[in-house]
Amino acid sequence: MTEPLHVEQAAAKLRDADNILILCHKNPDGDTIGCGSALYDALASLGKTAAVLCADPIPRRFRYTQPRLFRGEFEPSLVVAVDVAGLQLFGDTGLMPAYSRRVDLCIDHHAGNNGYAQYTLLDAGAAATAELLCEVIEAMGVEIDPHMADCLYTGLATDTGCFRFANTTAKTHRIAARLIEAGARVEELNTILFATKTRGQMEAERMARSHLEYALDGSCAIIWLDRDEIEASQADPSDLEELTALPIGIEGVKIGLTFRQQPSGSWRVSIRTVKGVDAVAVARRLGGGGHLRAAGCELLGTLDNAKSAVLAEAKAVLEDTSCRES
Amino acid sequence: MTEPLHVEQAAAKLRDADNILILCHKNPDGDTIGCGSALYDALASLGKTAAVLCADPIPRRFRYTQPRLFRGEFEPSLVVAVDVAGLQLFGDTGLMPAYSRRVDLCIDHHAGNNGYAQYTLLDAGAAATAELLCEVIEAMGVEIDPHMADCLYTGLATDTGCFRFANTTAKTHRIAARLIEAGARVEELNTILFATKTRGQMEAERMARSHLEYALDGSCAIIWLDRDEIEASQADPSDLEELTALPIGIEGVKIGLTFRQQPSGSWRVSIRTVKGVDAVAVARRLGGGGHLRAAGCELLGTLDNAKSAVLAEAKAVLEDTSCRES
Repeated sequence: MTEPLHVEQAAAKLRDADNILILCHKNPDGDTIGCGSALYDALASLGKTAAVLCADPIPRRFRYTQPRLFRGEFEPSLVVAVDVAGLQLFGDTGLMPAYSRRVDLCIDHHAGNNGYAQYTLLDAGAAATAELLCEVIEAMGVEIDPHMADCLYTGLATDTGCFRFANTTAKTHRIAARLIEAGARVEELNTILFATKTRGQMEAERMARSHLEYALDGSCAIIWLDRDEIEASQADPSDLEELTALPIGIEGVKIGLTFRQQPSGSWRVSIRTVKGVDAVAVARRLGGGGHLRAAGCELLGTLDNAKSAVLAEAKAVLEDTSCRES
Repeated sequence: MTEPLHVEQAAAKLRDADNILILCHKNPDGDTIGCGSALYDALASLGKTAAVLCADPIPRRFRYTQPRLFRGEFEPSLVVAVDVAGLQLFGDTGLMPAYSRRVDLCIDHHAGNNGYAQYTLLDAGAAATAELLCEVIEAMGVEIDPHMADCLYTGLATDTGCFRFANTTAKTHRIAARLIEAGARVEELNTILFATKTRGQMEAERMARSHLEYALDGSCAIIWLDRDEIEASQADPSDLEELTALPIGIEGVKIGLTFRQQPSGSWRVSIRTVKGVDAVAVARRLGGGGHLRAAGCELLGTLDNAKSAVLAEAKAVLEDTSCRES
């Protein structure tokens, strides 16, 4: 069992330690990398030795965060995980397995955090771990400098879709205001994070959109990409994640489906729903899972068979939803 | 010459008046309509008679703002314009011409406001007129209720591209926080304003993207739609404005060009540039104009001729830019 901490207690643990190793989750996003870099900066500003460890390379779009990466150059006396909800999310490449099983402190905002660390600072109401870490850094007595502000803003903005998603609160905006005052380069960051796509992404999006079709009287929209198209687009597979927002963003659509063929040939299905329609219910009988409004599953066989299977579940869920409403 | 006012002075003028007519600009956007509706609510909450007048219908996506529209039912003793930078922006349909030439008070955030009103409250540093009006309403002694908060949030969010654009400041985020606390339905509004496209928009975007091409060694990207495609898409022409953000959003692109054929056959060209590249310079010799990073022009003739003409200017501007940089 983990022991829950408050912001001040977590700040005290960090202030009292030296030789601190910061762990990020695998397939790193803006929040885990932004938090790792900002916490490194804060600890370094107090004269401490620290470094960041991640099982995967830092994506190119986040390279400005420039975390100091751990190469085994010191023996950590405190291991801190940022934005990592469970042990399985650390990954197991390189030095990671040696440290991910002995995490002293976890700072996180995922409601599903399974308490793997000795101490945990968890605020499931925070839109991003960066929102929480901002308070921890201030409680450490560190003034947030422009680079820390860039890193924390990256976490805040990426986890909220630039303040668009339902997790955005008044507090999220107040922290954004503080980070801007601390020197976050909002214009440059928003351009990098939200306004720039690679040619490969544009090409993948063009092909996926060309396959757009509607089903179930327009309450369902479907896009897909087969493995040949994905390869031809030269898009980074992680860049294709954004496609899943397209079908659900069409007027009148209640269930948006994105089919991406995996290198093995199977179809990875991303299910997005509007408020009031249960995405997990669509995925569950197909062996998948997820959240209320974002779920997924993986199906073998042809695209037509995969589409039929998912549409049958989608139809049942929509009928069930309208029964409950009437 | 107009007389400049402070927030408190503008609030006092509104508090002291009755029978107040609120004017919005033509082709209304979220800021002018949001401000019109919020100011109406604030005045009504003080027991005053007021109404909103706009030369064009309220777009469907903003219908939740539900402003009380003026039908000539009272003789205005104070005429207030919100978010209207110049006389030519009022339009001249219906009752508008009778009132747009006698504006008593203008509340606006456009640096180019030409001072047509007797009194003007102008803050060119505000991201939206809603940012400024929020302070005026509070200075009037009115507590912002959930509907006012929805309307003001609409102005703030639409004028900043949901806090993405360069005009977003720490103050913008602080006002957003206050509006959320006052009850703004951020999740619903962001879905309506930013996450929903019509089938027509999707179809127009599919066609425009299918024409994507690169020029000038990848520093220029072009999309286009001819008038037949625009008609076939069934998209509302005002919904095509968003297309202009596509080409400039591609990695490596410095000038993004969108060609839309008008019903008359001519080509309307939208020019978007990255920081440091002058969009007006591309448009100027073609008879167009605009802002530093967003300009436009209209050209007769074939698409190929129009493209050649614009690309020649774009090439000159890029060469000039790289000369200045080196």
